[in-house]
Amino acid sequence: MTTQGQRPVTHGMAEFAIGLDWAGAPAAVRREAVRAWLNWVGCAIGGSRTPAMDAAVRGILAMGAGEIPLLGRRERVDVAGAALLGCLSSSAHTYDDTHLSTITHPTGPVASALLAVAGKLAGVGRPVTGRALLAALAVGMELECRTSCAISESRASLGWYMTGLSGGIGAAAAVGRLLGLPHDRMVSAIGLAAAQACGFRATHGSMAIAYVPGVAARNGVAAAYMAAAGFDCADIAIDGRNGLLQVLTGGHVADAIRHGLGERFEFLSNTYKPYPCGIVIHPTIDACLALAREEGVRPDDIVRVDLRVHPDALDLTWRKLPDTVLDAQVSLFHWAAAALVHGQAGIAQGELVCVQDKTVRALQECMHAVADDSLAGNQASVRVLLKDGRTLERFTDNAIGSLTNPMSDEQLARKFEGLVGPVLGAQAAAGLLRTCSAFEDAEDAACILRQAATAD
Amino acid sequence: MTTQGQRPVTHGMAEFAIGLDWAGAPAAVRREAVRAWLNWVGCAIGGSRTPAMDAAVRGILAMGAGEIPLLGRRERVDVAGAALLGCLSSSAHTYDDTHLSTITHPTGPVASALLAVAGKLAGVGRPVTGRALLAALAVGMELECRTSCAISESRASLGWYMTGLSGGIGAAAAVGRLLGLPHDRMVSAIGLAAAQACGFRATHGSMAIAYVPGVAARNGVAAAYMAAAGFDCADIAIDGRNGLLQVLTGGHVADAIRHGLGERFEFLSNTYKPYPCGIVIHPTIDACLALAREEGVRPDDIVRVDLRVHPDALDLTWRKLPDTVLDAQVSLFHWAAAALVHGQAGIAQGELVCVQDKTVRALQECMHAVADDSLAGNQASVRVLLKDGRTLERFTDNAIGSLTNPMSDEQLARKFEGLVGPVLGAQAAAGLLRTCSAFEDAEDAACILRQAATAD
Repeated sequence: MTTQGQRPVTHGMAEFAIGLDWAGAPAAVRREAVRAWLNWVGCAIGGSRTPAMDAAVRGILAMGAGEIPLLGRRERVDVAGAALLGCLSSSAHTYDDTHLSTITHPTGPVASALLAVAGKLAGVGRPVTGRALLAALAVGMELECRTSCAISESRASLGWYMTGLSGGIGAAAAVGRLLGLPHDRMVSAIGLAAAQACGFRATHGSMAIAYVPGVAARNGVAAAYMAAAGFDCADIAIDGRNGLLQVLTGGHVADAIRHGLGERFEFLSNTYKPYPCGIVIHPTIDACLALAREEGVRPDDIVRVDLRVHPDALDLTWRKLPDTVLDAQVSLFHWAAAALVHGQAGIAQGELVCVQDKTVRALQECMHAVADDSLAGNQASVRVLLKDGRTLERFTDNAIGSLTNPMSDEQLARKFEGLVGPVLGAQAAAGLLRTCSAFEDAEDAACILRQAATAD
Repeated sequence: MTTQGQRPVTHGMAEFAIGLDWAGAPAAVRREAVRAWLNWVGCAIGGSRTPAMDAAVRGILAMGAGEIPLLGRRERVDVAGAALLGCLSSSAHTYDDTHLSTITHPTGPVASALLAVAGKLAGVGRPVTGRALLAALAVGMELECRTSCAISESRASLGWYMTGLSGGIGAAAAVGRLLGLPHDRMVSAIGLAAAQACGFRATHGSMAIAYVPGVAARNGVAAAYMAAAGFDCADIAIDGRNGLLQVLTGGHVADAIRHGLGERFEFLSNTYKPYPCGIVIHPTIDACLALAREEGVRPDDIVRVDLRVHPDALDLTWRKLPDTVLDAQVSLFHWAAAALVHGQAGIAQGELVCVQDKTVRALQECMHAVADDSLAGNQASVRVLLKDGRTLERFTDNAIGSLTNPMSDEQLARKFEGLVGPVLGAQAAAGLLRTCSAFEDAEDAACILRQAATAD
């Protein structure tokens, strides 16, 4: 019993994780799982050759090698390392996805853990079907997003890195489903993952921004394997005395996890990123792109730029004049300036040459931002004062990639090609896009690893 | 810069971790490192055959095997798994040690990480001397205890599991020293460990109580290897905006880490446990043992028992009538009753037969506890009302194993033999005791693994 006198929420979570019937699940659930998977595979391959991945692979290999291939690379590592690296890779460009109300990036920890375990199971002649993987993905993302909601509602510090707190829990439940855990072991898997919940946003601006989600994936795999081996954890780990919710927030109320679980799907509120940077920057980018593309604003003409943004944007991406690619990922000012200068906000605008570009930096110097708590998270305003005295303003009412203006399947496909093509070539990218789009029919989910690992 | 305008504390931590001169260190520092090491090796071997370890070893092996031997066992695992399992083993009986002002169990994460890495380095012809390991142990424990102080002073929830929060940081710095990390990589190692800080006390009462310290050891090893490979972390991870201290406590002040680092050694306040249960129970046990041994109190004569304890004792070990060994480890009432019934409080009193003993349970039924915040942490009072109408009371003013009444070298040696003998035999225990006592002279610290791994 929890202090509320209720059955601990881990039991309901375990029942859902074990019991979800894929064939009977709403079509929207099945569709969104496929879209999340496709978006994740693209991001993971797209991030596979970044300096952060190069260093991370060296670090994992220094601790030990293994048999699981990595997306977009030639090395092989153990299952926990593969989970960590796959998620680190998909997080490297901060281009993946966001559960907006909690600022969780939900697919990475769950999908990467599942693919690593599918790779391991395929290696011992127990392949996981695409359908089984997608069902486990939906289960894990749902529990992850709901855990994030419970933490957010109780107002834990915004400085926590939500994906690190809830990601491992989703990954553990998902992997636990693949491993066929019975109820009590699933409860333990969820608890052991909660006990490893970690991460804060001071890691932003360094490679460690991608480590925390990676760690969540690793922790989820470890929790599920430990529980499968009979290592147990108290069922009060989430909503009991001195449990996750209490230490984070002082509260115990897990209603956000419990209510309507299996009926209403929170992970349907996941969104896919159109730009490779912090999600809170996106509404500002929309407005800057409109000014550059539609109004023809040119940097030389600008005297002053005023940004009006949701308070989270300044809380999380306050950095001005970043010097590095990683700092720029979480710099509102860099992306506003780069979008105004280039009329684009893609991978190229996150690269060092753009971060160090004098024109982009000069524009940041004349940029002023204020937080406006009357704005929604998908809103921002950008006003430019021009040398000729004119003032132009664009208001983003409903940012692209937000919940009410989601990326279409077509836009996701183009994003996938843009990420995978430069790494594996256009032909391989097209083949992988077909495989991922029809993933419900895949006989062995680990086929992705064979298609996307490289020989060199 | 941190929000306080100071250089981030990770820089000072890195300088200390790299720069500590063992030969020039105070004699008390060198002596206490040896005592901590000896106590840890004993606890790790003593816990190596527990059900929690059996399950944990199965879980780690299911993810992958390796080349590092385990204390008291025949299996071999990878370096991260060896770090986790060594610390889990030493935590399994909750018999290890405690930094009392913060309730950190400091040696496990650091010592286990170091022994695993020493094993790995020995395997590639780069043995670590006993002296180098002890110096790294002192470094890691010092940074761990100071980090705990900073977290405690800022009044983070007592529900957090302090060893899980600070243990990885100590382990990372210690392993970083063994790996010879330069300043910037040491800063990253400390930050990456901070980013994995985790754990809460709701795991108590299940095997997971030993998982959290194990995870700290694993996280520290991973952080150091990642940093060694060039994976970086922001230097503001501990005392910067949205860093560890802010998310845990709302504050940023790292003075408890910074002030006097390298001059005053906080880890000298570590204490070794005389009884295999939660440290906050120990003053009550002292009083119960005195009543049983010196006053001849027998359970049949008791009508009522009144415990007056420090508030932490009820906050952390409130469990009454525990049904399992793991619940009993953190049950004030079980240990008070068992000590009164048996006049002993050792490994045997923690076993299931004693937990389920009717006499022990009946005594818990007539036991009443109140928190008294005028008591110090090493104080407690036990009053028994006897059938003949007499009342006897014992007040523990200064519990055995507390800072002002520490375990002697002789007591530690007996504890070591009591833990190691039943696992490896008396002769091997005596040999290991000699090796550990003279560990400053060991040419290869990994000799411990060869002496204590078993062939069967």
